Amino acid sequence: MIYLDNSATTKPYPEVIESFVKVSTDYFGNPSSLHGIGTQAEKLLSTARKQIADLLKVKSAEVFFTSGGTEGNNLAIKGAALANQNRGKHIITTSIEHPSVMEAFQVLSEQGFAVTYLPVDATGRVSVVDLEKALREDTILVSIMHVNNEVGSIQPIAEIGELLKQYPQILFHVDHVQGIGKVDLSLIDAGIDLCTISGHKLHGLKGTGVLYIRQGVRIAPLFSGGNQEGQFRSGTENVAGIVALAKAMRISLNNCVLYAHKLKEIRTVFYHGLQEIDGVQVNSPVDGAPHIINFSVPGLKSEVLLHELETEGVYVSTTSACSSKKRTASKTVLEMYRNQERAESVIRISTSFHNEIEEAKQAIDAIGRAVAKLEKVMR
Amino acid sequence: MIYLDNSATTKPYPEVIESFVKVSTDYFGNPSSLHGIGTQAEKLLSTARKQIADLLKVKSAEVFFTSGGTEGNNLAIKGAALANQNRGKHIITTSIEHPSVMEAFQVLSEQGFAVTYLPVDATGRVSVVDLEKALREDTILVSIMHVNNEVGSIQPIAEIGELLKQYPQILFHVDHVQGIGKVDLSLIDAGIDLCTISGHKLHGLKGTGVLYIRQGVRIAPLFSGGNQEGQFRSGTENVAGIVALAKAMRISLNNCVLYAHKLKEIRTVFYHGLQEIDGVQVNSPVDGAPHIINFSVPGLKSEVLLHELETEGVYVSTTSACSSKKRTASKTVLEMYRNQERAESVIRISTSFHNEIEEAKQAIDAIGRAVAKLEKVMR
Ligand SMILES: Cc1ncc(COP(=O)(O)O)c(C=O)c1O
Ligand SMILES: Cc1ncc(COP(=O)(O)O)c(C=O)c1O
Repeated sequence: MIYLDNSATTKPYPEVIESFVKVSTDYFGNPSSLHGIGTQAEKLLSTARKQIADLLKVKSAEVFFTSGGTEGNNLAIKGAALANQNRGKHIITTSIEHPSVMEAFQVLSEQGFAVTYLPVDATGRVSVVDLEKALREDTILVSIMHVNNEVGSIQPIAEIGELLKQYPQILFHVDHVQGIGKVDLSLIDAGIDLCTISGHKLHGLKGTGVLYIRQGVRIAPLFSGGNQEGQFRSGTENVAGIVALAKAMRISLNNCVLYAHKLKEIRTVFYHGLQEIDGVQVNSPVDGAPHIINFSVPGLKSEVLLHELETEGVYVSTTSACSSKKRTASKTVLEMYRNQERAESVIRISTSFHNEIEEAKQAIDAIGRAVAKLEKVMR
Repeated sequence: MIYLDNSATTKPYPEVIESFVKVSTDYFGNPSSLHGIGTQAEKLLSTARKQIADLLKVKSAEVFFTSGGTEGNNLAIKGAALANQNRGKHIITTSIEHPSVMEAFQVLSEQGFAVTYLPVDATGRVSVVDLEKALREDTILVSIMHVNNEVGSIQPIAEIGELLKQYPQILFHVDHVQGIGKVDLSLIDAGIDLCTISGHKLHGLKGTGVLYIRQGVRIAPLFSGGNQEGQFRSGTENVAGIVALAKAMRISLNNCVLYAHKLKEIRTVFYHGLQEIDGVQVNSPVDGAPHIINFSVPGLKSEVLLHELETEGVYVSTTSACSSKKRTASKTVLEMYRNQERAESVIRISTSFHNEIEEAKQAIDAIGRAVAKLEKVMR
């Protein structure tokens, strides 16, 4: 089996699962309980928070635990918009965000917010000049993803952050779900106010995530209640999941250094290998993230190719996992190339530190065979 | 160690943790992925959904997975209010709800909803007559907990449901977090539209929960995005946690039958034992839930008694876990007895199927010793 769908989800590290089991078994207390079983859990929680803060080079008090990327994005975007609407109702994002950002903006637009969607060029990037032109007196929020989940294009977060430092009244949110552990980003240097991270994309557990909220930033909570997580996110904390997340993040960020070179090499194998297959168009930009390569075979439906590759033991995806069941075209590829046929025939390869160069070569061979076979059938 | 804080959180069953490990390790796929690794995960998800639906005697399509009770309550209450505000803006709850209900109503009241808080009598119950009187033309939601988390009073959910059947335009939400597996409730017979359940209160894992949404009921989601969970709750599903939840619920509901008698006997030991200790006032009603017994020692601060009991290896709680850090008085006891001193000196004992009668006797002895010792110190 060659698993190349790591942007949909990753296999949890065994150590991560071990931590989860240990905490669930031996430290099952509610961190809000006043007795020792509670305070032990509370201690694990604050240790995990401190470890994650250190990894992100931010303060412990800026790390908030969520159930994943979708919650993080919704909490950041709806929370920032609703808490600051008295200062203005204009919000900005891009036209290639993940549905959890896109739909959050959609809901806000139905609630009377004005939304600007920045276009992307053929490399899948927004332009800082476009953003600057879009800024208004009443702009209160800019939300731009770091690494696109469909094609892997990397947005100029540092430059955007630099620009936005001149507009301290505008909050800057970054969906870092696909970026973390793959493409460096300093939250502090980029002046980011809110940053979303998901556990299961970095070999952690599903149902875990972090929202970074810069000290001093106010957002409206989605969950009201017992006032856990500094009132931004009530609810009994998933202590075992959080400890497991801290471990997954530490291992992943370490592997990011150890295997950076291998990941790049694998990408090169795919990039060049795909370009040599008849009928294949590579959609990812040359300078994209090291772990995502997206291509089209116009005329072939993505799903058919995906299943053909599966018979060869190669697991890929069509569009992003959560859109794939709708069998729609890739929004990102459509925005980049404005070509419906190309957008309807996308395949996404997404790797992890644990893929090998040999696997990439085998996968390329399999893709070549599959495309040739299917094209013959189609004609 | 005698753990008597099961209403704060329970120890996960070993089988529950095993299921979690198995799924996280061998079925780590994203249920939205189209390939076999995804569809395997999807199959586990729908099996768990079916199992839980069967246990609740509802349809699979009515079971929605959340991150816990706080999310469930917020999603049900805010979601129902926002989706139906065109029909009216009056909503009703009780004065003794969990903070995740109370604060959700608070937020809605700040957004222009009119809220009626039903009072409770000295047994901690609301009256159906009071509710009927409170109903208005523009009432759209009634939210009433089944079992109170502080004193264990059981609300007349079936009667309330009967009344509300005459008002089909009013949605009926029940916070069943403390009730499930302890006090029988038929969601269907009681005409419940929305019902919240939390995994970690029934020996499942933290970060898991269910919201029952009756077919045909519309609510506004808190998380927008990839449209998982019938669009009511986007976000990659915590498949392993959900499978573990189905198992925890099955075992708990089974134990509920097996150990019903023991649980009642333990309650009797506490109830009578406490009444015989000088200075102790039992706050729980005689006919309350079998697993919660609340008492006060007026003049003694709860926290001091809690820590004294801890030195004897007995773990109890003051008010509900998530309020306990604020060190405020018990809202429920205050509403029942209107006595500040009594409300500031509460201790909650909450049991599980796995406590033994012998433990209850030892705990009563420990409470007797602790109260006598502390009262001597205070005088
Ligand atoms: C860029 C991006 N943002 C957000 C999400 C949502 O994260 P989660 O799956 O944890 O809800 C994903 C995952 O699909 C993603 O790729
Ligand atoms: C009655 C009641 N409702 C809701 C909740 C919140 O559940 P969770 O801890 O899963 O967020 C609790 C737990 O404290 C509770 O006792």
